[in-house]
Amino acid sequence: MDQPIALATPQPQAPLDANAWVEAAFDELAEGGIDAVRVDPLAKKLGVTRGSFYWHFKDRAALYDAMLRRWRSRATYQVFNRFERDKRNVDSPAMRLAWLLNLPRSSPRATHAAAVELAIRLWARRDEAAAQAVATIDRARLRYCERVLRDASVSQKDACARAYLFYAALNARAFVNADGKYALPEDFVEKLLTP
Amino acid sequence: MDQPIALATPQPQAPLDANAWVEAAFDELAEGGIDAVRVDPLAKKLGVTRGSFYWHFKDRAALYDAMLRRWRSRATYQVFNRFERDKRNVDSPAMRLAWLLNLPRSSPRATHAAAVELAIRLWARRDEAAAQAVATIDRARLRYCERVLRDASVSQKDACARAYLFYAALNARAFVNADGKYALPEDFVEKLLTP
Repeated sequence: MDQPIALATPQPQAPLDANAWVEAAFDELAEGGIDAVRVDPLAKKLGVTRGSFYWHFKDRAALYDAMLRRWRSRATYQVFNRFERDKRNVDSPAMRLAWLLNLPRSSPRATHAAAVELAIRLWARRDEAAAQAVATIDRARLRYCERVLRDASVSQKDACARAYLFYAALNARAFVNADGKYALPEDFVEKLLTP
Repeated sequence: MDQPIALATPQPQAPLDANAWVEAAFDELAEGGIDAVRVDPLAKKLGVTRGSFYWHFKDRAALYDAMLRRWRSRATYQVFNRFERDKRNVDSPAMRLAWLLNLPRSSPRATHAAAVELAIRLWARRDEAAAQAVATIDRARLRYCERVLRDASVSQKDACARAYLFYAALNARAFVNADGKYALPEDFVEKLLTP
């Protein structure tokens, strides 16, 4: 929450960015599931009044919507766009798949993202909007993996099946706690890419 | 909550089975995560007083322990024991793996179990006992898959890697919502079992 050092005019009641509410909401979600995302605890955590919430959101449902929109964007397009921007480092299908497999264990931020995703998948069991967001994300990721495999000249039919298998492996790397003995086959990516 | 029709002596304060509390707790867990598991709502749902909780559990932490013990037993040994009892129907490694892959989509009970598991994995991100239960379960399942593959004469090293891949696929079947286009390769089990 760094502020610019010199503001022309102090703004005693400058409302927080809507973004700050959504980020704080993700922290609560990762910690205690969707029922932990409530206006009062969020306001307290952000050090603002409950009233300032309503600068940005009509109600809690509106915050939920904003969270799902943000998650949809962050969990797919931002990753894929990074590839498009940074072709030099991940310019082959093999490098892209290896980079993706490494993602879940790459940083504390990835660990936080995994907790958020678990909580959203749990929420999706009882909430239609969350279920739709999850379905959209799963489909977008599968389609992306399929495209990478197609780029390596894997046939259409094989690409779909292998995309599913790759996505399963990616999820296992994020959510399964295996000791070193159990890990993906060393030639996993290589075999997926064999036309 | 069927009761035997004729009891010799009516027992006005007969406490519920501890089991009933644990089962009700799993329902709350699947619905709202671990923070939703609280004595008062549970007592209300079960139609008993808060006090009767303490016939069975010292406190909420004791209920949590009982839940984790039950989950550990249900999520592994009960499945594996079913194989051992019912050798006729799942008497080959291929049949066992196919049967396991079908499990997540076999019944509403499996759907409920998947929600419980999501909630426990989320809980495990902040609770050491839950994290240990998850690690125990993951290890037991991986070890079981490894044994099935070894029974099919897959080498030790390959069996570990393939067990991981199989377990990843099994989790994807439980937690990923893919449309029909994306699914496991038809020869998935067959290839895993090739020595």
